[in-house]
Amino acid sequence: MTYSLLVECNDATGLIAKITTALFENKVNIVSNWEFVDQDRQRFYMRADFEGACDIEKLQENLIEKLPDGAWICLKEPCKKNIIILATKEAHCLGDLLLRSKFGDFNGAIQAVISNHETLRPLVEKFCIPFHYLPHQEVDRETHEKQIVDVIQQYSVEYLVLAKYMRILTPQFVSQFPNQIINIHHSFLPAFIGANPYKQAYQRGVKIIGATAHFVTDDLDEGPIIAQNTIRVDHSHGFHDMAHAGQDVEKITLSKALQLVLEDRVFITGNRTIIFE
Amino acid sequence: MTYSLLVECNDATGLIAKITTALFENKVNIVSNWEFVDQDRQRFYMRADFEGACDIEKLQENLIEKLPDGAWICLKEPCKKNIIILATKEAHCLGDLLLRSKFGDFNGAIQAVISNHETLRPLVEKFCIPFHYLPHQEVDRETHEKQIVDVIQQYSVEYLVLAKYMRILTPQFVSQFPNQIINIHHSFLPAFIGANPYKQAYQRGVKIIGATAHFVTDDLDEGPIIAQNTIRVDHSHGFHDMAHAGQDVEKITLSKALQLVLEDRVFITGNRTIIFE
Amino acid sequence: MTYSLLVECNDATGLIAKITTALFENKVNIVSNWEFVDQDRQRFYMRADFEGACDIEKLQENLIEKLPDGAWICLKEPCKKNIIILATKEAHCLGDLLLRSKFGDFNGAIQAVISNHETLRPLVEKFCIPFHYLPHQEVDRETHEKQIVDVIQQYSVEYLVLAKYMRILTPQFVSQFPNQIINIHHSFLPAFIGANPYKQAYQRGVKIIGATAHFVTDDLDEGPIIAQNTIRVDHSHGFHDMAHAGQDVEKITLSKALQLVLEDRVFITGNRTIIFE
Amino acid sequence: MTYSLLVECNDATGLIAKITTALFENKVNIVSNWEFVDQDRQRFYMRADFEGACDIEKLQENLIEKLPDGAWICLKEPCKKNIIILATKEAHCLGDLLLRSKFGDFNGAIQAVISNHETLRPLVEKFCIPFHYLPHQEVDRETHEKQIVDVIQQYSVEYLVLAKYMRILTPQFVSQFPNQIINIHHSFLPAFIGANPYKQAYQRGVKIIGATAHFVTDDLDEGPIIAQNTIRVDHSHGFHDMAHAGQDVEKITLSKALQLVLEDRVFITGNRTIIFE
Repeated sequence: MTYSLLVECNDATGLIAKITTALFENKVNIVSNWEFVDQDRQRFYMRADFEGACDIEKLQENLIEKLPDGAWICLKEPCKKNIIILATKEAHCLGDLLLRSKFGDFNGAIQAVISNHETLRPLVEKFCIPFHYLPHQEVDRETHEKQIVDVIQQYSVEYLVLAKYMRILTPQFVSQFPNQIINIHHSFLPAFIGANPYKQAYQRGVKIIGATAHFVTDDLDEGPIIAQNTIRVDHSHGFHDMAHAGQDVEKITLSKALQLVLEDRVFITGNRTIIFE
Repeated sequence: MTYSLLVECNDATGLIAKITTALFENKVNIVSNWEFVDQDRQRFYMRADFEGACDIEKLQENLIEKLPDGAWICLKEPCKKNIIILATKEAHCLGDLLLRSKFGDFNGAIQAVISNHETLRPLVEKFCIPFHYLPHQEVDRETHEKQIVDVIQQYSVEYLVLAKYMRILTPQFVSQFPNQIINIHHSFLPAFIGANPYKQAYQRGVKIIGATAHFVTDDLDEGPIIAQNTIRVDHSHGFHDMAHAGQDVEKITLSKALQLVLEDRVFITGNRTIIFE
Repeated sequence: MTYSLLVECNDATGLIAKITTALFENKVNIVSNWEFVDQDRQRFYMRADFEGACDIEKLQENLIEKLPDGAWICLKEPCKKNIIILATKEAHCLGDLLLRSKFGDFNGAIQAVISNHETLRPLVEKFCIPFHYLPHQEVDRETHEKQIVDVIQQYSVEYLVLAKYMRILTPQFVSQFPNQIINIHHSFLPAFIGANPYKQAYQRGVKIIGATAHFVTDDLDEGPIIAQNTIRVDHSHGFHDMAHAGQDVEKITLSKALQLVLEDRVFITGNRTIIFE
Repeated sequence: MTYSLLVECNDATGLIAKITTALFENKVNIVSNWEFVDQDRQRFYMRADFEGACDIEKLQENLIEKLPDGAWICLKEPCKKNIIILATKEAHCLGDLLLRSKFGDFNGAIQAVISNHETLRPLVEKFCIPFHYLPHQEVDRETHEKQIVDVIQQYSVEYLVLAKYMRILTPQFVSQFPNQIINIHHSFLPAFIGANPYKQAYQRGVKIIGATAHFVTDDLDEGPIIAQNTIRVDHSHGFHDMAHAGQDVEKITLSKALQLVLEDRVFITGNRTIIFE
């Protein structure tokens, strides 16, 4: 049996010794171990993957005794997490996630896809996944988001994934899913925040474009970054060429970032992420 | 004998045919050929490298006859261009340029180095190149820049290279050297314009940092980009680590961009560059 | 109307002038132009994309008159090409191609998928594409390949794509489809030719792995390379981790290379490719 | 005060707990910690950077008591290591190391440069470092290597760096400096082992070239790899262009790998390296 231990607490000397000793005394074997201290915030983060038969409740008690007050501990076996995907019209990110979830090594189970257009229904239904069409025309933003929340609440989900969902979510919406919404932005943030990043990139004459997967917070495109990738472009790329060239980067970056999150490899400290990989 | 032909003019049908026919009629052989039309500005750009004995003046006349009014033509044998480098305290970009100019394949001849600190004098004098120390303290910006211009005018130079020169140049200074000043900025512009880009990058929690070589214009960090490169960082990189990791990218990017400019491979169209490589 | 002109012939002076003059005289406008001379073989290669109403047959005649004997010319409007995919059990490359062909910008039409296992049938049938199961067990290699050829001949196809097809094809098979078979090999060739490249890579302790898309020739993994990509690995990657990490590189590399071929951007010269992109 | 602890021993449960507890009991604070188990060889590797006043000898004793028999422990403050560089005619790798050692953050002190040509003397002497010219002509290989060893023995050095030293060293020579010789090979090994890798790369028509820094063993180009990097090339690159384009990759890769070694971040397990960075 393999388990993961996740720990977050205020920093103190001896934390690694205390935690690894608790694991040793409970007769489990650490397979991989990561730790990091955010010096700015004096916070300690650790993940240990271990194997061996052990009394998880007792181990948890041992750890709580040894760790500082307010420590957050999560001890679990690996399991798939439920997600819902929001998308608009572009198929490449959504398609990649659908393929991975059905035929690849993917730690998530896609419960449903919600879209403000009908375009992607044929793709989603190929994979026998519920498709909810919620048009944004003729309803105000508040009502539209209320409809989205209603759909989400029909399912039990841990993360929402914005796979090129081209609507800005309100702080009211975002606040209902703290650190649970993952977006792919089609630029190497913080360059080209907001609309039409490829058009902005073309106009600026950059030689590199990219994509950024990040958690969504109240500030547009300002949430903690999980993963980024870039590719080269040159003067011959118009912005449609850039958009086309960027699709592969977008889909790989989103899928990779989501997989990291679903495998509990991502901690958030302030507005930054720690990736234990 | 090998020559390069550079052409810039308003776009029209048949330009490639006219130019290559003129070359053919003058009995030279095109070795490499690049052309590009900036559709937004309807401007045509071309470079042809050719070999063969030919009457350059006659060829030039033939070309002018065939090309639209106002066409810009440059016909030349490859030759080294004179440059002056401005730097502050960091040695990596300057050192790389010094090494290339003395021991490598480099199309430039460094005439002098100007600095607002004495730090780099020992490095520069190892290479037997004049070092001009022009401290910026106790003089106003205008006077300081006047001193710099005075030094530059002692030499005959085609390009000024800012190799981590950490002072902002005024529009008055820049306007004296249009499209002749090349800077290395230590971020993948337009992310992290201005001071302390690595500190900004750390605070934003990016997973990729980079460097940008660009022509200097009146707008800080907004000039035409020549070359960009990026490298990966992670949560364990503080901003000093990022600055350190970025040094190799900075030096390679600046040297590469400068070499492209010195080889006449860079055209500027609006705020973008065309690179014929 | 947009057309592409492809030319291959022995090198001679004035070829670009002759070809572009023919285009100009036929009143078309060159949008993009690429040319290359393989100096080793003294062969000239060119692609010109042009637009304008023109008499294609007349233009072709004009070109043939002007070009050296034996010149190969292809003048065409862009059109989708038919392909057949061979695969074994892995879904990532095949899935990516299926998604692109149905929902993306892809210049090919997948006529059928042939596999030596049933594993991928559910994936293929989601996309309403014929799936031919041709088990290799209990038949000799010759018979198996004969069965494959029989299936291929039911369709009209221009390229065969080996999307992680894990069987070696005989020279007899390959010779029936010269320069028409494209394979993805899961290493940066020529490193790790043959079986189990990720295992070889792990054992060699490399810090970079990659993928190579190439034309298939009689020599295993020795055909002309179309596209290559690499990613970093470290000591913590066992060979299963490498194989997993490599999947994204494989699929992007194969899809990209195939798209280049389908858009007529790839010439073969000797054992090397010229990519006009 | 900051120290590094390096540990290598047979794997066993509880090693991390034992080591970190010993550090905690000696009242030091772990700043960074890395560990890895080579499962194939059942060997445990760890590096801990810690700070705090402590009795190093007592700590060492505590650790030895707790660790399995045969454990290798190294407890040290960071210090510069002495190196000797061997080179032939090319300046880019050597120059980069000279610059870093005099003006950059570099953990090594270059004691001398040995070369079989006079070409690089002016470069080396700029940096006031002894240059030993040992021509290989007119002496047999054994004598030549004997002369090299004689020079090396005049100094106290920990590593030999082959900065484009274009002679193959005999097993007799190599065996005198086990795990102490670092070479830069101008290909992404194991592709293009041996002479003229860029020529081989050109002939194979690869789209990516690279460089590999590795420890030198008896088997040519087969030693443990420390670092690799790649760059893209295309059909327009002849092999001289490739060689030129590869120079920056070579120098960055060698300097980076050497820095890792000099900072005690590299363990060797079998024919693979573990990099704690």
